[in-house]
Amino acid sequence: MKAHIITIGDEILIGQIVDTNSAYISKALNAIGVSVYQISSIQDDKDHILESFAFAKADSDIIIITGGLGPTKDDVTKSTFCAFFDDELVFNQEVFDHVSYLFKKYVKQPLLASNKTQALVPSKATILTNRFGTAPGMWMEQDGKIFVSMPGVPYEMKALMEESVLPRLKERFELPYILHKTLLTFGMGESAIADRIESFEDELPKSIKLAYLPSLGRVRIRLSTTGSVKEEVDAAMAVQLEKLEALLEDIFVGYEENGSLEELIGKALVARGKTLAIAESCTGGSIVQRFTSNPGASGYLVGSTVTYATRSKVDVLGVDSALIEKHSVVSAEVAEAMAVQVKKLYNSDYAIATTGNAGPTKGDSDAAVGTVYIGIATPEGSTAHHFMMGNHRERVIGKTVNKALELLNEEILKN
Amino acid sequence: MKAHIITIGDEILIGQIVDTNSAYISKALNAIGVSVYQISSIQDDKDHILESFAFAKADSDIIIITGGLGPTKDDVTKSTFCAFFDDELVFNQEVFDHVSYLFKKYVKQPLLASNKTQALVPSKATILTNRFGTAPGMWMEQDGKIFVSMPGVPYEMKALMEESVLPRLKERFELPYILHKTLLTFGMGESAIADRIESFEDELPKSIKLAYLPSLGRVRIRLSTTGSVKEEVDAAMAVQLEKLEALLEDIFVGYEENGSLEELIGKALVARGKTLAIAESCTGGSIVQRFTSNPGASGYLVGSTVTYATRSKVDVLGVDSALIEKHSVVSAEVAEAMAVQVKKLYNSDYAIATTGNAGPTKGDSDAAVGTVYIGIATPEGSTAHHFMMGNHRERVIGKTVNKALELLNEEILKN
Repeated sequence: MKAHIITIGDEILIGQIVDTNSAYISKALNAIGVSVYQISSIQDDKDHILESFAFAKADSDIIIITGGLGPTKDDVTKSTFCAFFDDELVFNQEVFDHVSYLFKKYVKQPLLASNKTQALVPSKATILTNRFGTAPGMWMEQDGKIFVSMPGVPYEMKALMEESVLPRLKERFELPYILHKTLLTFGMGESAIADRIESFEDELPKSIKLAYLPSLGRVRIRLSTTGSVKEEVDAAMAVQLEKLEALLEDIFVGYEENGSLEELIGKALVARGKTLAIAESCTGGSIVQRFTSNPGASGYLVGSTVTYATRSKVDVLGVDSALIEKHSVVSAEVAEAMAVQVKKLYNSDYAIATTGNAGPTKGDSDAAVGTVYIGIATPEGSTAHHFMMGNHRERVIGKTVNKALELLNEEILKN
Repeated sequence: MKAHIITIGDEILIGQIVDTNSAYISKALNAIGVSVYQISSIQDDKDHILESFAFAKADSDIIIITGGLGPTKDDVTKSTFCAFFDDELVFNQEVFDHVSYLFKKYVKQPLLASNKTQALVPSKATILTNRFGTAPGMWMEQDGKIFVSMPGVPYEMKALMEESVLPRLKERFELPYILHKTLLTFGMGESAIADRIESFEDELPKSIKLAYLPSLGRVRIRLSTTGSVKEEVDAAMAVQLEKLEALLEDIFVGYEENGSLEELIGKALVARGKTLAIAESCTGGSIVQRFTSNPGASGYLVGSTVTYATRSKVDVLGVDSALIEKHSVVSAEVAEAMAVQVKKLYNSDYAIATTGNAGPTKGDSDAAVGTVYIGIATPEGSTAHHFMMGNHRERVIGKTVNKALELLNEEILKN
């Protein structure tokens, strides 16, 4: 069963927003056994939409459309729907009641004319109720192909997917079982890993596909397969995973499907009844944000401090100013002291700290762009590590975050 | 001049990564006068790539391809290039020398066989040197259409775009001038704004396109136009912007093209010689991360503290525990105290603080999910604001960040 995702809206095509909806939809479809053949981002233009519908219908069974459904004049999706399905817009009482209810409850103002037009929907459409917004989801069919249209607002779209679209697709089709397993590794490059697992790759059954996903200082390796009997697929995969884990034992961190590295760390801390504090300089809050973007972070994360200015490392964290003067603010000594001090400040069991220069220009110290020190404090003691992360700000920050998480994970797993 | 962006790689289609490359490329092309007609994310599969090349060539002049160029076996892009252009792979000494140089400098290990294959390129390709990686960029032409292939690693791709692709496109074509102006607004919904500016929209010249971009508690309004003479385009736009600014005066924050709201705030602080500190609870570092993702944040941001646990609000920030007991940790009083205390702690001029419950479950207080208080401290005093941000974690955090930035911006602009 193949799907084609179409996102409508110029904001993606002029680079004003990043299309996060398609990643979410792809992942959700994969999880129920639908593979995504293509994602197309197209203009909010009738001819272009019609052309894309025809193209998608030719190559896929399910066409998922997001965007182009707001209450204002710049949206043409619904009229284009009518053109494609030879249909007309009719007033829908159910949608009108829902829009009225949302206005009464949240906006507390009378309905506007533009909101009333949201109750006009193609007569052949099955309405999917949008719990979080005024634009309804719509389900239409043509020649056995399914078209689903949803608004582009991420949390509205997600609720529609989870509550309406995925259950309906599961009910409608006998879907296969798709299985991805992604090994998180650290400290080795793509080509070196490929060299090491060359014979494994050559002997891999044709039904299992391998892919390398290198990113910011680490490589993930994904095995993908599919089949109709879950138990058989799982068993065939397990055989290969056992071989691969043995080959990569020294650089294997865990499976991404069990959670991101920060989620794995969170689970490990909770299981041990331990807590974490963070002091960030060059990473500027990127580490704490990785933890707090997951619900449940409050179960192990006590707090974090971003000490961007040198004086706040002294005033807030209590790092000895003589130490900074002697070794400079970007040094192993200061990274370690930051970790020790933030651990004390928040009374946590573990702490990580970063200090360095992410560029583009030199900061409070004379350290070359890309110089990074990561400090770690544990119940047993403290240490610091030195890295050169290259000369690109985004990359320096991203690699430092990944490396700090890996070092912390190693320390936690020792206990 | 139209472009079609093709991203190759299953990781996008299974939802493992979000396609940020296309947003960057679209923005960069727009800035030099190339409009993006479509973005297609396709499978790492020969037939699919060939089909997409043909399709893109029919609708666009410039085809930008990313991904599928790593040193390992799962990439088929180069051989597909040869099939499409009726070409063959040949050894390229320049690419080989560059790969050897990178290995000697950074990997400090002998070249692997898989890296040597990276020096094989289609004979008709013009090589674009990839300063940050081993996979070269390639520029090929067919029937006057340009195909550019780049690796999918974001910082490698960006350097290739800036140093090779954009300069070459500008040299090759007489490109028009494309102008987008995006008004940031706050506090009013999409349909209410549409109602207010209805006659403006009706009278807008056909050459100027208007779009509404609602997101997380605020609406952005974009006007777009194009032409061959920059001065004429700018003048025609200025007329409309003056009208629109007057209509939206009470809810207008600034133009996104001058920077994001956090960049505008940073500029305003630097211009006034003032500094900022941040205390975050429910936003968990998302506010500080918005500031520090921009270079130059160290010019005004002294530091920030994430106090996730209630006791760290007392221990680290020095909020009075009696105040927390009396009003609960999610309260106007505590939000205001957090702002006052973090301002004192970091010795800054301004401070913002958040406390609330982003969900999905209740935290250290009994406050309903979605309850948020934002505290602000300025050189003149302090205050706190109460909001109900809905029942969706991601939305609560996102809306709170936006609202905190808006409130801070208002305070700074008073002086």
